[in-house]
Amino acid sequence: MERYRALIEEHVERWIGELPGDALYGPMAYLMRLPAKRVRPALTLIGCELFGGRPENVLDEAIGIELFHNFTLMHDDIMDASPLRRGMPTVHMKWDVNSAILSGDAMLVKAYQLMGSNAHVLKIFNEHALAVCEGQQRDMDFERRADVSFQEYREMIRLKTAVLLSCALRIGACKAGAGADDQESIGAFGENLGLAFQLRDDLLDAFGDPTVTGKRRGGDLLNGKKTWLLIRGLERATDEGSGVLRGELAKPIPERNVDVMIEQLRGLGVEREANDEVLRLETAAFAQLDAIAVPDERKLPLRALARTLQARTS
Amino acid sequence: MERYRALIEEHVERWIGELPGDALYGPMAYLMRLPAKRVRPALTLIGCELFGGRPENVLDEAIGIELFHNFTLMHDDIMDASPLRRGMPTVHMKWDVNSAILSGDAMLVKAYQLMGSNAHVLKIFNEHALAVCEGQQRDMDFERRADVSFQEYREMIRLKTAVLLSCALRIGACKAGAGADDQESIGAFGENLGLAFQLRDDLLDAFGDPTVTGKRRGGDLLNGKKTWLLIRGLERATDEGSGVLRGELAKPIPERNVDVMIEQLRGLGVEREANDEVLRLETAAFAQLDAIAVPDERKLPLRALARTLQARTS
Repeated sequence: MERYRALIEEHVERWIGELPGDALYGPMAYLMRLPAKRVRPALTLIGCELFGGRPENVLDEAIGIELFHNFTLMHDDIMDASPLRRGMPTVHMKWDVNSAILSGDAMLVKAYQLMGSNAHVLKIFNEHALAVCEGQQRDMDFERRADVSFQEYREMIRLKTAVLLSCALRIGACKAGAGADDQESIGAFGENLGLAFQLRDDLLDAFGDPTVTGKRRGGDLLNGKKTWLLIRGLERATDEGSGVLRGELAKPIPERNVDVMIEQLRGLGVEREANDEVLRLETAAFAQLDAIAVPDERKLPLRALARTLQARTS
Repeated sequence: MERYRALIEEHVERWIGELPGDALYGPMAYLMRLPAKRVRPALTLIGCELFGGRPENVLDEAIGIELFHNFTLMHDDIMDASPLRRGMPTVHMKWDVNSAILSGDAMLVKAYQLMGSNAHVLKIFNEHALAVCEGQQRDMDFERRADVSFQEYREMIRLKTAVLLSCALRIGACKAGAGADDQESIGAFGENLGLAFQLRDDLLDAFGDPTVTGKRRGGDLLNGKKTWLLIRGLERATDEGSGVLRGELAKPIPERNVDVMIEQLRGLGVEREANDEVLRLETAAFAQLDAIAVPDERKLPLRALARTLQARTS
């Protein structure tokens, strides 16, 4: 991963260095320079190398994916009225809402500028970009609805989060000349990995070690955020006629007892079920990777990345 | 024009008909269906025909340009807090700001979907789309500045408005296989026409017939909106040490005397100067058109369109 990250950071800095220093581009440079794991652009490089391409040949597209990701963050932060991103002020707080709208728009155009060298790449990017918008739309819809089903939530997460990991890998694969079936397989690998990643996030919020995650234990639960765990817990609680979760959610936030909620989720079997689901998703991902007919040593970077994600505790 | 408009409206309706009917796409369909002149997509068809192409072959790109234009309107209306667009509620008023941000984002992606068939077209579109964002950025900057020069204002208008007319024509020309020089010429024609169009708009606000324009006489002046006329008037007023315009602008809006402001602009020679500039721009546009070596009858639609814009009184 370190090799890919170094390549990406160098290319990001070169890209930023060519920007005019004005009010339109300043927010882009700011957001792109906040410390980030660069998982998506790394996947593009890895996806390219998997099929025998050179990572250096797909750097523009990798940065394009990272730009697109950061464009969604810039606009989502406005929509969610988030004050902080990666521990720093969000663009609409540091500048203003109008700057964040417009700079985000220009960022999307800049992403397309890096993505336009190849008609197939562009087609993949267009489809996935639209899916990400649809995911965000559902996320906003769900905020206003009390009856979101587990299946609907899963589909929203797939669109909003997992699809972009899939896109990153597919574009790398496409540039390396991978066939349609192989592109499908690597895309499905990315999607399953993305879903597992998000579910693990939800699990860490409730059952992780706060001294390791660095976040308040059960913060999402306390705020009534519709996560995989809470939605599944409420579904199961309905089945069994229990009102503990609903009872806590009916209270004002400061009066909610998050330990009671966590115990209830455990008692309802939601923790076990979620852990099983993570395992199922990761198994499916690895099966997709196995289906790809390239020398096994080429798969090592993806396996390593997946294992890192599996083992994470924060 | 009617032939082009019919083609465009039919294609817009077909495009809308294929959209999912949900909250993400509803605002796009709404905005695209508001009555509009469709000048930009018509220019793409005309630009294609000028160089021997068939308008039917460039309909996707024409709708892509119109989508991009409407995307900028959707986001600009948020930034300007405008309640009305074409006499109807703006998207952020009819839905909400978040819907207008997200639906606008998806609209830009949809524009790219229609634009992606040709790498040259995509390159032209990218460059011009970025220029439009830069124009909007300057427009917002200028709202906060008292010292905007005439040259700066002109460059802002060029970027924000004229460049997209140029883009529409160039893309049509490009799809028809026009050479680089011809693309330059038709682009310059569009830019000059766009600048003339905007300046004429400013002139009509102050010196047009309110019973024909349907707008309050001098509405922009009254609100102190930084138009070509006001900026030039303030520049000249400074030269001559006169404080009439500044004096009126220093008053609260209801106390401003718009007739005094208009007389002052006339007295300073700004009306005459602006009329001369419109003529100069239109002459430059026609010279660019003359430079293009295609049979003269192919230039008739563009000449007719330019004459219509010249003769307009509202």
